[in-house]
Amino acid sequence: MHELVETYLIRHVGLEVGGKLHTGRSRNDQVALDIRLRLRRRLLEVWDATLNLIEALVEKAKSEKKTVMLLYTHTQHAQIGGFPHYLVAYIDHLLRDLERIEACYGRVNLCPLGASAIGGSTLPLNRERVKELLGFDGLLENSVDAVSSRDYILEAASTLAILMVHLSRIAEDLILWSSSEFGYVELPDELASPSSIMPQKKNPCILELVRSRAAKVCGLCSALLSMVKAVPTGYSRDFQDTKPPLWEALNLTLSSIKILALTFRKLKVNRDEMLRKAAESYALAMDLAEALVKHSGLSSREAHKVVGALVREAAEKGLKLSNLDLGFLSKTAKRVLGREISLPSQVFSRIVNPRLVLVERQTLGSPNPREVERMLRARVKAVRESRRNLKLKASKLRKAEAKLQSQVAKLISKA
Amino acid sequence: MHELVETYLIRHVGLEVGGKLHTGRSRNDQVALDIRLRLRRRLLEVWDATLNLIEALVEKAKSEKKTVMLLYTHTQHAQIGGFPHYLVAYIDHLLRDLERIEACYGRVNLCPLGASAIGGSTLPLNRERVKELLGFDGLLENSVDAVSSRDYILEAASTLAILMVHLSRIAEDLILWSSSEFGYVELPDELASPSSIMPQKKNPCILELVRSRAAKVCGLCSALLSMVKAVPTGYSRDFQDTKPPLWEALNLTLSSIKILALTFRKLKVNRDEMLRKAAESYALAMDLAEALVKHSGLSSREAHKVVGALVREAAEKGLKLSNLDLGFLSKTAKRVLGREISLPSQVFSRIVNPRLVLVERQTLGSPNPREVERMLRARVKAVRESRRNLKLKASKLRKAEAKLQSQVAKLISKA
Amino acid sequence: MHELVETYLIRHVGLEVGGKLHTGRSRNDQVALDIRLRLRRRLLEVWDATLNLIEALVEKAKSEKKTVMLLYTHTQHAQIGGFPHYLVAYIDHLLRDLERIEACYGRVNLCPLGASAIGGSTLPLNRERVKELLGFDGLLENSVDAVSSRDYILEAASTLAILMVHLSRIAEDLILWSSSEFGYVELPDELASPSSIMPQKKNPCILELVRSRAAKVCGLCSALLSMVKAVPTGYSRDFQDTKPPLWEALNLTLSSIKILALTFRKLKVNRDEMLRKAAESYALAMDLAEALVKHSGLSSREAHKVVGALVREAAEKGLKLSNLDLGFLSKTAKRVLGREISLPSQVFSRIVNPRLVLVERQTLGSPNPREVERMLRARVKAVRESRRNLKLKASKLRKAEAKLQSQVAKLISKA
Amino acid sequence: MHELVETYLIRHVGLEVGGKLHTGRSRNDQVALDIRLRLRRRLLEVWDATLNLIEALVEKAKSEKKTVMLLYTHTQHAQIGGFPHYLVAYIDHLLRDLERIEACYGRVNLCPLGASAIGGSTLPLNRERVKELLGFDGLLENSVDAVSSRDYILEAASTLAILMVHLSRIAEDLILWSSSEFGYVELPDELASPSSIMPQKKNPCILELVRSRAAKVCGLCSALLSMVKAVPTGYSRDFQDTKPPLWEALNLTLSSIKILALTFRKLKVNRDEMLRKAAESYALAMDLAEALVKHSGLSSREAHKVVGALVREAAEKGLKLSNLDLGFLSKTAKRVLGREISLPSQVFSRIVNPRLVLVERQTLGSPNPREVERMLRARVKAVRESRRNLKLKASKLRKAEAKLQSQVAKLISKA
Repeated sequence: MHELVETYLIRHVGLEVGGKLHTGRSRNDQVALDIRLRLRRRLLEVWDATLNLIEALVEKAKSEKKTVMLLYTHTQHAQIGGFPHYLVAYIDHLLRDLERIEACYGRVNLCPLGASAIGGSTLPLNRERVKELLGFDGLLENSVDAVSSRDYILEAASTLAILMVHLSRIAEDLILWSSSEFGYVELPDELASPSSIMPQKKNPCILELVRSRAAKVCGLCSALLSMVKAVPTGYSRDFQDTKPPLWEALNLTLSSIKILALTFRKLKVNRDEMLRKAAESYALAMDLAEALVKHSGLSSREAHKVVGALVREAAEKGLKLSNLDLGFLSKTAKRVLGREISLPSQVFSRIVNPRLVLVERQTLGSPNPREVERMLRARVKAVRESRRNLKLKASKLRKAEAKLQSQVAKLISKA
Repeated sequence: MHELVETYLIRHVGLEVGGKLHTGRSRNDQVALDIRLRLRRRLLEVWDATLNLIEALVEKAKSEKKTVMLLYTHTQHAQIGGFPHYLVAYIDHLLRDLERIEACYGRVNLCPLGASAIGGSTLPLNRERVKELLGFDGLLENSVDAVSSRDYILEAASTLAILMVHLSRIAEDLILWSSSEFGYVELPDELASPSSIMPQKKNPCILELVRSRAAKVCGLCSALLSMVKAVPTGYSRDFQDTKPPLWEALNLTLSSIKILALTFRKLKVNRDEMLRKAAESYALAMDLAEALVKHSGLSSREAHKVVGALVREAAEKGLKLSNLDLGFLSKTAKRVLGREISLPSQVFSRIVNPRLVLVERQTLGSPNPREVERMLRARVKAVRESRRNLKLKASKLRKAEAKLQSQVAKLISKA
Repeated sequence: MHELVETYLIRHVGLEVGGKLHTGRSRNDQVALDIRLRLRRRLLEVWDATLNLIEALVEKAKSEKKTVMLLYTHTQHAQIGGFPHYLVAYIDHLLRDLERIEACYGRVNLCPLGASAIGGSTLPLNRERVKELLGFDGLLENSVDAVSSRDYILEAASTLAILMVHLSRIAEDLILWSSSEFGYVELPDELASPSSIMPQKKNPCILELVRSRAAKVCGLCSALLSMVKAVPTGYSRDFQDTKPPLWEALNLTLSSIKILALTFRKLKVNRDEMLRKAAESYALAMDLAEALVKHSGLSSREAHKVVGALVREAAEKGLKLSNLDLGFLSKTAKRVLGREISLPSQVFSRIVNPRLVLVERQTLGSPNPREVERMLRARVKAVRESRRNLKLKASKLRKAEAKLQSQVAKLISKA
Repeated sequence: MHELVETYLIRHVGLEVGGKLHTGRSRNDQVALDIRLRLRRRLLEVWDATLNLIEALVEKAKSEKKTVMLLYTHTQHAQIGGFPHYLVAYIDHLLRDLERIEACYGRVNLCPLGASAIGGSTLPLNRERVKELLGFDGLLENSVDAVSSRDYILEAASTLAILMVHLSRIAEDLILWSSSEFGYVELPDELASPSSIMPQKKNPCILELVRSRAAKVCGLCSALLSMVKAVPTGYSRDFQDTKPPLWEALNLTLSSIKILALTFRKLKVNRDEMLRKAAESYALAMDLAEALVKHSGLSSREAHKVVGALVREAAEKGLKLSNLDLGFLSKTAKRVLGREISLPSQVFSRIVNPRLVLVERQTLGSPNPREVERMLRARVKAVRESRRNLKLKASKLRKAEAKLQSQVAKLISKA
């Protein structure tokens, strides 16, 4: 319906020349218009869906407030962290994606109409009026620019591709975590594809599809760059072929966002397994070294040497860090440094406890629970503002549409 | 020198724990930092070079104020336009590129330092202070986000790719125009590669290299998307390989921008040939049809029919539109519509004159000389503002560096 | 119908264990099978269509036997050539594409069935028998390889992308040649999109679409590489998403080949314009220099110097090479070399004649009409052999299908 | 040295016209030549390195003859397999890569020389003789084709990209397997990047770089497609820019192959952990179901139902399949089917033993040890033949070079 009215208007607005309706329109500027009209609506949908996904992550973070987990670098244990803190990282990726989407929207929501074939018209078309009736924020002024530029399509496609790279990495995490070997999370039955013969096996097919669709969207972005690059300035029919990849990229991105939102709403987190693996790891080594610096007066290098020796010995003996006592540490330090060290026992016992060590983290942005809570509150606020902003844009489009329809009604009654 | 100081500081700022200097730094957040430190400077260079290119276009537009040219769609004659108006379209492409570069800069100039390996530190590192000393506009708060996100690299790469698509299309125009068949422009000797045996032949090699480098930058962007996509959240060594494509994309883009700036400063425009081809074409057809609507009371459809018949007959007889007279038009109209039409002769004579017809164009953004002048003035203003903005950013970096150096000096004298 | 039978067979062949039908099949090897069954048929279609396109080029070359044209490097005049010779270059591109398609077909037409989920079966499935009934040329032996490799898809996609690059370059030639400025060829009305108002303007939209579809296929190839790369060895659902890009790449390639075949069958060549532009160019310079080496005893360097000076002077005076006489040459040589040269006048007059100069070309593969005829004969033979080869493969598939159907009938009657 | 001689010859062979040396050469065909001369040598190096990698895999397979491992689909347990069988899958990927490299070599090793600028020469250059002296297998006949086609570069690049996709997937397997959670393999100290503080942590950085370089090579392939696509038929300077991506793709591929060969020669396989995880999994379910079909007369559907129920119950009770006895199976079958089933106890005990079940696998290509041994023998033979083939090609190049040098010596002594 919306599009019908728009099309009607496009054909008639600004064309009341000498009591008659004339167009001064050309296929070239109208094609450019049609893409922008549709793209802006789809971008708002992606925006909305991304906010929903962030909200699902916020909720999950709140309901897993105390869930400890290992942080990995090189797919190897690195440090102890927390699951809600990890989710905040996801949220922060997505908030930057929203910034890019909003900026892209601003360059999409410009009106090319009135450029005629490519050189403007001798008819007194009122481009400003058309712009307002169609809810645009501005004009593509120069008529050659208006019919021949497609950078907004390339910007939209690459913005989606970057967003999909984020989603693919999240999917990759979840696929790994849902393997038997990690066992951190479990997909709900409705989102997993079980095998009849191994009913406990839950194939994370939907996550694999998020991963493959990210590859597809990146490929579509690459296709679009190559396609637009091939066209000299001016309009060519090549531009018609920019539409299917653009709409497909939007569809794939939208559905992937929705799938991940659903996944996080339903995901079962195996808190005990996460805690067990953390407690049995050597991921506390860095915190212990820092404690030796802070409380025992060691230099960084000395602390690293002592803890390195400790971990090596523990690993050889099959001991877990969390099982060791201060005595073992003292002996190792003596052996390595040739002198005694002192570390308050209540410090030591906090460090080797995966829950308590998080409270020791002092840097801004760390998985310290207080810090996570602070960040979550700030994210909730950011989401609220973003949603307000989104609503303003959507409402501007709706109002323009209503005004347009009333103008159309008048035109029709006059005719 | 700058980087030495930075590295020094990174190793020492915020680390005065109990009278000693300690780091709490890890390779992971420092790698993330180093890319951002270098990328932000390179982005400012691209920004600066793009402004120079726009200025070259502005100057050219001013010195070719009256140069008429054909506008093409589908590499076929479409309408009469003007060369300076065409250059404004280029300028408008590039101004949007600058918007994207500025937005990208904002997401690049954030400080990841203090994230430690991935989970923050138990040492009381002052991340805000480090941020300020290093001239950053903000923090990458979440420690997982800080070491594992590379979306700013992808955004920079795709921003450059889109810019290169613009440059490639400009190069394509110039290659075509410098063919014998078009003969619109001539490269200066120092930018062309002549043949010893056909000295008048000027191979536009540097423009062909702009075209091929655009393809390269698009491919590098594709490589980066695929590279980052493959890494689960967290730091992996894959990220080390994001650097060469990024620096190469920046180098190729910078040199291409400079080549085009030089080209436009030196380009010889064959005004007579441009005018001759315009006058001999049928590209006035649309203006004539609009005149019949405006002055003779024809409907759009009727006007198109009459002009179509006129052009067909002229083409068959080998006549150029600009040679026809009102009588020929009247006869054609009579034959096609079955009735007489009237068109003021001074209107007709303006329409079939490639120079005068531009003055008739009434739409905002058209090649009407007044409109072109207005747009040029606005672009000059936009460039000035953009340059002011660029200088502010550069100066902020310089000031932070100076402050950092004085802090370093103090630290060193203390040590 | 074919696929129904195949599916039936897949479900039943090799499964008569102890008088009952059992499968030992898994979704994983069947998915791998389905792609191969469909892909091999589509590859044969592409093969067939490419042969048709080559035949259209051969016919065109025959009907334009004597058409002279300029050869371009850097979109600048380079040497005189011939249109049929140019078409042989296209044919040679395509014959190499056919070599690649045939090699790819060989790696596609292998049977993965019998790999079960990934580790084979304890049931005595007869993989060799299944292979033969399904018309395959060989087996994907290793069961892990059978379900987890997709290199044949990547090879097919990149083979199509390379073919499309060829088609895009051909389209680019034709778009350029159909501009008013070149005027070498004219699209037939049924393939051009005219404008109502400029009826003589023929927009080469279908060629622009070939160009944009080449970009699309390259992007799909890029998507597939990134998609398969992301999957560890083993089957993952990502592979499901390899299908749409593959089928789309095949469809776009097939339709582009057909469009170009039709274009060449209908294309109007403006022989006079081609000849005129050749005669008015300086593209005979290299032949003249060679004549001075061959007949006047000059060194290469001397010859280049003389001809360079000649061309420069001619260009300055607005003279065309073909209008010059021996006297002019002698004077230039004297001025440049300081001595007289002699060149037989009948040699000179052949060199400056665009038709006759081609007869002077002596190298294998040159546009010498005898050489073009020889090459065309050889290409016709190559096409005939390729078609024979294609028919053999198609007939093997048909025979296997028939045998399969009779086996199915037996199985059904037994059941 | 080699290249010097080649260049010398190129400048002089076939040019003895009338007792003097002349060239008839142009930059355009020589550029085309240079790429082919270098590319063919680099392809042979890739071929050689790939054979070395396959040999490393063969050796590893032999030294791990009895190593049982889990096979995964969707990164979830699927069936029991064997490590040497898995390595045969890698070998088979690579053997197909070698087929593609060999076919590509055939299209690279063709001589373009003698095409002159683009239209051949009037000098009697002996293209056949040049071809032989330079060790080429054939000619690029048509002169336009010779200077303007770059499909061999695109084919080489995509062949390398596909090979790199294989290497990336292998690297991904190894990265996963070297995580603490999997613990299947251990990188030797010299190939891992340890942390000073967690000395047992071995970061698989070199494998991550294989993964990222695969992305780079895919991106370079994409760049090349877009680059060549942009050039109309004929030579343009864009082609100069095809060289850096090509050489870089070759370098990255070569080094990645070598890294993986080294990795497999040094890799420590944790056989016990592999066996333990296999024994504790439910991956025997499919074999058990097939046994019920084969030995107990159940239909496929019934067998799946019984085994599904069995696995579910075992999983709920925390029991491993390998701990279950026949009684448990019988009870489950009774409950599910409502009737007794019989399965020979020696069959059951073989099925639930990860080692013995492999002996039960009957399909061609399965991980049955006899089958693995047969496949390995066949692969060893294939490698031997491929190496013979490679040597023939290398020796042909060397002989041509020697002959060329003696010709050069003669020419020089004459001069």
